[in-house]
Amino acid sequence: MPFKQVFRVRWVDTDVAGVMHFTNFLRYFEACEEEFYRSIFLPFNTIREKYGIMLPRIEVHCQYKAACRFDDFIEVTMKVREIAEKTVTYDFQTVRLHDQKLAAKGSIICIAVNAEWKAVPLPADLTKSLRERGT
Amino acid sequence: MPFKQVFRVRWVDTDVAGVMHFTNFLRYFEACEEEFYRSIFLPFNTIREKYGIMLPRIEVHCQYKAACRFDDFIEVTMKVREIAEKTVTYDFQTVRLHDQKLAAKGSIICIAVNAEWKAVPLPADLTKSLRERGT
Amino acid sequence: MPFKQVFRVRWVDTDVAGVMHFTNFLRYFEACEEEFYRSIFLPFNTIREKYGIMLPRIEVHCQYKAACRFDDFIEVTMKVREIAEKTVTYDFQTVRLHDQKLAAKGSIICIAVNAEWKAVPLPADLTKSLRERGT
Amino acid sequence: MPFKQVFRVRWVDTDVAGVMHFTNFLRYFEACEEEFYRSIFLPFNTIREKYGIMLPRIEVHCQYKAACRFDDFIEVTMKVREIAEKTVTYDFQTVRLHDQKLAAKGSIICIAVNAEWKAVPLPADLTKSLRERGT
Repeated sequence: MPFKQVFRVRWVDTDVAGVMHFTNFLRYFEACEEEFYRSIFLPFNTIREKYGIMLPRIEVHCQYKAACRFDDFIEVTMKVREIAEKTVTYDFQTVRLHDQKLAAKGSIICIAVNAEWKAVPLPADLTKSLRERGT
Repeated sequence: MPFKQVFRVRWVDTDVAGVMHFTNFLRYFEACEEEFYRSIFLPFNTIREKYGIMLPRIEVHCQYKAACRFDDFIEVTMKVREIAEKTVTYDFQTVRLHDQKLAAKGSIICIAVNAEWKAVPLPADLTKSLRERGT
Repeated sequence: MPFKQVFRVRWVDTDVAGVMHFTNFLRYFEACEEEFYRSIFLPFNTIREKYGIMLPRIEVHCQYKAACRFDDFIEVTMKVREIAEKTVTYDFQTVRLHDQKLAAKGSIICIAVNAEWKAVPLPADLTKSLRERGT
Repeated sequence: MPFKQVFRVRWVDTDVAGVMHFTNFLRYFEACEEEFYRSIFLPFNTIREKYGIMLPRIEVHCQYKAACRFDDFIEVTMKVREIAEKTVTYDFQTVRLHDQKLAAKGSIICIAVNAEWKAVPLPADLTKSLRERGT
């Protein structure tokens, strides 16, 4: 089931063009991801303490379809698209709530690394939670 | 000829993982792009005043190859890959200077829009400068 | 009555010291202020359109008492301390919810300016709302 | 002797009001401070490794006098105002270079803390460098 999270575009998110800066869409993707991991009781720092791993990004992609402006409510939807041995791929969409327009869609690929930043397999029960709750 | 710009990773660019946050690579891509446009005497606000257009991003892509840390010198290289009627595509690379490792590579596609955010053709002399100086 | 808003510290808010960057406390002060103005039906862009004014900051002050970390719930409290002819002063406090420790306290002074960035008196009904709802 | 550093206001530094966001002045204060510490061969991470301390902020103050816009050159001047047993206070000024107008002035107070975030005395040779080079 996709995971959804609503945010409000802040003044500091905007730039002189009057719209949300393109990098902030990715920051809201990540904010949604953070809430998803909390929802499966595995916030990033718990993952770090429990499994000794982190999940840095190895690839991001985003297409921008419509601008978002200060005060807009935006809904970010996240879905786990693919789980490999050491990587997980999420798909994201951002919709402007006032007119239901797709504002952005993209994806992020993360890799599991240990404390020495070496790639390692994803822990089995993390994989299980991602599959059950994120797909 | 590719355009190069060196930056220093700031404290505020890093996160609790001890490395530069993935969205800041894109902010340095843009900082390099801003300097490139200044180098051809067409900073973003001049483009806005002279041609009545802006160049919002419609697509970004980035692959992360090596982490960057506080105090690292990073060199961003930008090249204009493709100029279409209304869009321009840049390729970027970020190299960590202390060990010459490729840290990130990506691309950004921009579209010319007028004051009403309608897509319009790129002005001929902007296209000319991009071709002569950025490819 | 003071206005309260709860936020969650995001990964991108932290730095290599493992704590929220000091400037992000001010960004959460502002996020609280934005919600306050929405709660009195006067979001910043409505103020701009309705009264032709903006409220840029002329002074900020903040004392840091305890660090905030990724995933912490923080509660920001805002109170209108003083309303003068052209300026308004807010007091802010940020409390870490898990141990009720005061993390930061500060103030922001704003000035009403028109479209030419000239200082102008605060509109009477804005002042009235601030007095009734923010003090 | 005051330490000076010139920056260029980036697109991402601005907001929908068309000016640099007030928190970014503080980020440029810090960027100047980082360069100052490099100039005395003690970047923040060296301080951490050599002395086992960090210098988190306990107080910031800033007054805003004139707006800065995209593409503006800004010069930040930093001066060590006061060195106490465990704290150091810097004064900062930001000047818009095109018209030499004072844009912002402020101060930051830092405290020396050890790895457990306990306040500790500033190391003698750090104090010496700050006195010789920063005042």
